[in-house]
Amino acid sequence: MPDESTLLDILAEIFAVNVPEGDLYIGDDCAVVGSMDGKVVVSCDHFIEGVHFDRSFASDFEVGFKSSVTAISDIAAMGCLPRFLLIGLATPTGTGLEEVFRGIKSAADHYGVVVVGGDMSSTGPSSQVLSISTTVIGTDQLTPAYLTGFGGDQVPEPVTRSGARPGDWIFVTGTLGGSCAGLRALRDHARLGEPTALERKYLYPVARIAQGVLARLCGARAMIDISDGFSCDLNKVCARSQVGFELSNVPCEPGASLEDALGGGGDYELVFTAPYRDLIELAFADKGLDLYCVGRCIDSPGGRFTDGTPVVPRGHSHKF
Amino acid sequence: MPDESTLLDILAEIFAVNVPEGDLYIGDDCAVVGSMDGKVVVSCDHFIEGVHFDRSFASDFEVGFKSSVTAISDIAAMGCLPRFLLIGLATPTGTGLEEVFRGIKSAADHYGVVVVGGDMSSTGPSSQVLSISTTVIGTDQLTPAYLTGFGGDQVPEPVTRSGARPGDWIFVTGTLGGSCAGLRALRDHARLGEPTALERKYLYPVARIAQGVLARLCGARAMIDISDGFSCDLNKVCARSQVGFELSNVPCEPGASLEDALGGGGDYELVFTAPYRDLIELAFADKGLDLYCVGRCIDSPGGRFTDGTPVVPRGHSHKF
Repeated sequence: MPDESTLLDILAEIFAVNVPEGDLYIGDDCAVVGSMDGKVVVSCDHFIEGVHFDRSFASDFEVGFKSSVTAISDIAAMGCLPRFLLIGLATPTGTGLEEVFRGIKSAADHYGVVVVGGDMSSTGPSSQVLSISTTVIGTDQLTPAYLTGFGGDQVPEPVTRSGARPGDWIFVTGTLGGSCAGLRALRDHARLGEPTALERKYLYPVARIAQGVLARLCGARAMIDISDGFSCDLNKVCARSQVGFELSNVPCEPGASLEDALGGGGDYELVFTAPYRDLIELAFADKGLDLYCVGRCIDSPGGRFTDGTPVVPRGHSHKF
Repeated sequence: MPDESTLLDILAEIFAVNVPEGDLYIGDDCAVVGSMDGKVVVSCDHFIEGVHFDRSFASDFEVGFKSSVTAISDIAAMGCLPRFLLIGLATPTGTGLEEVFRGIKSAADHYGVVVVGGDMSSTGPSSQVLSISTTVIGTDQLTPAYLTGFGGDQVPEPVTRSGARPGDWIFVTGTLGGSCAGLRALRDHARLGEPTALERKYLYPVARIAQGVLARLCGARAMIDISDGFSCDLNKVCARSQVGFELSNVPCEPGASLEDALGGGGDYELVFTAPYRDLIELAFADKGLDLYCVGRCIDSPGGRFTDGTPVVPRGHSHKF
C-alpha cells in the first residue's frame, strides 16, 4: 500500500509532460496553466463506483479512461475545446490506482488534454467506493484547423442548453442505445478478454469534440451530450428553451432496442438544434462525420413522435 | 427527497448572482467564466465525511463552509487570488444539502469568489459518505488594492513549494494547533450551541489570501498552507527545495499543545520562506497582519530545533 507521496510519484511519472516555462503542473498547491486565449470554460463531473461504473466487469484502465471521456464530453457539448484536466480521487484503502491513472492518461492523450493536477484522498473506513471527480478546463477559442472554411472573426458563442426555437431541426451525432445494450451484455455474460464492439460502446465512449465545434460553427442554437438518456437529455434542452419536440427518427445502434436508444444513456453523442438542415448535413458530410436529423422543435411543450405518441423522458436521474 | 432538478433549482437560488453578459454559470454542461486576466491557477480538493469532517459535531453549514475555505486556501498558498468555485457533491440518499450549500455560499461570499457550477451525484447504495470535491479557479493577476506600495509591473511569479534556499527565514502567518485542539474539544464534549473560540479554529479556518499575496510581493521563495500538519507540511516544502530547517519558535494557539501545533494539521495558516526578515515583518505589521518568524532553512536535510532535537514530520498522510 503506497502512501500519498509514493502515489504522487507514480502519478507524476505517468502524467509527465513538458511544462511550459513559468507554468506548473502536478505536485504543488495549485496548477498554473498560463494565460488562456478566449473564454475559460469549465466543468466538473463525478464518476462513482456502483453508480457510474462497476469494476466487476470494467477494468481499472477502462474506468480511468471513461471517467475522463465523460468529463471531456461536457466541453464538447458547448462546442468548445478541452485543454486541461484535474483528477480528484477518493479511494478505499488498498485500491491499486496505477491502471486507473493509465486509463486517464490514455484518454487525455487522445483528446490532446493535459493532466495538470488533482487531489487524492482515502475514502475512510466506512466506504469501499472508488470515486473519481474530474475537472476539465477548456476554451471557447478554436484552433485554425477547426476554422478552415469559416470566418474566424465570426465564431458564435459557446452553445448552451437554452437556445432552441420552434421549427429548429434536431440532430444527433451518432447511433444511440449502444452503451445501454453494451452494459447489458457485460452484466449478462462473463467477459472473455477484449470487449465486443457493443461492449466498447459502454466502456469506451467518445467525446464528440469535432462534432460539437462544427455544430457551433454551423449556428447550433442549443446542445447537450447524452449522458442520462436521449429522451431525457433532449427534454432538458427543450424544457430550458421553452419548446417541445417531435421525433421522426431515432437512430439505433445495431444490437440496441428503441428503448435503449431513448432511455439508456451513456452514449455521449451530442444532440443539437439548428434552424438550417441542408447546410449542416453538408458540413458534417464534408468532414466525414456522422449526423442524423431526428426531428424538429415545436411550439407546444413536451415530446411526441410524428404519429402523435408521446415521448416520455426516460433516463437516469440521481435521487438524493 | 428532492430529485436532481429540484436540487439544482435550490442550488441556483442560493448561488444566484449577476452573470456577466456572454458568460454562463450554473445549469449548463459547462460554466463559461469569460476571459481571465493573467495566468489561470487551479486546484481541486476533496472533503470527505469520516476523513475530513464528522457530522456528529459539525453542522451541515459548517461542513459546507469549511470545504470551500480549505480549497480556497490552496490558492492563497501560491500568493494568488481565487475567483471561481465548482462544487462536486456525492451524497447518500436522503441527505439534506441546502445547509451545505448555504455554508459554501457564505465562504464564497467572504472571499469574493463566485460559485459557477458543479456536479451532483448519489453515492449509490453501498456508501453513506457525503463527499465534496471543490475546484477553485484563480488568477496570478493581483488587483490594485493589493499592489499599493509595490511596483505593479514587477510582481513575482506565484510561489511554489520548491524555491526555498539555505539561509531563508521561515515564517508562519498565525498561531498553530488550534484546529487540532478544537477538534479534540468537539470530540470530547457534547457541543452546546455555538462553538467556542477554540472549536471555531477547527470549524471555521481562514484562507490567508492577503498574507499569501503579501508574502509573494515581498519575495517569498516557497510557500504552503498547513493542512496536514506544520512539521509535515514544512518538511514537504524543504524536501522539495532540497534544504533542511531549524525551528527556533513554534507559536501555539492558547489551549493547544506543542504537539498539536507541530502535527495537528487543519490550521490553514501559511508557512513561507524568504531571504529577508525585517522587510517582511515590517510589511506584515504595516497591514496589521500577524506573522511569526519560526526559524531558518539550513543546508543539511531534515528538521531540528535550535537545541539539536530532531523535528519528526508529523501530520496526516492519507494511506491508500
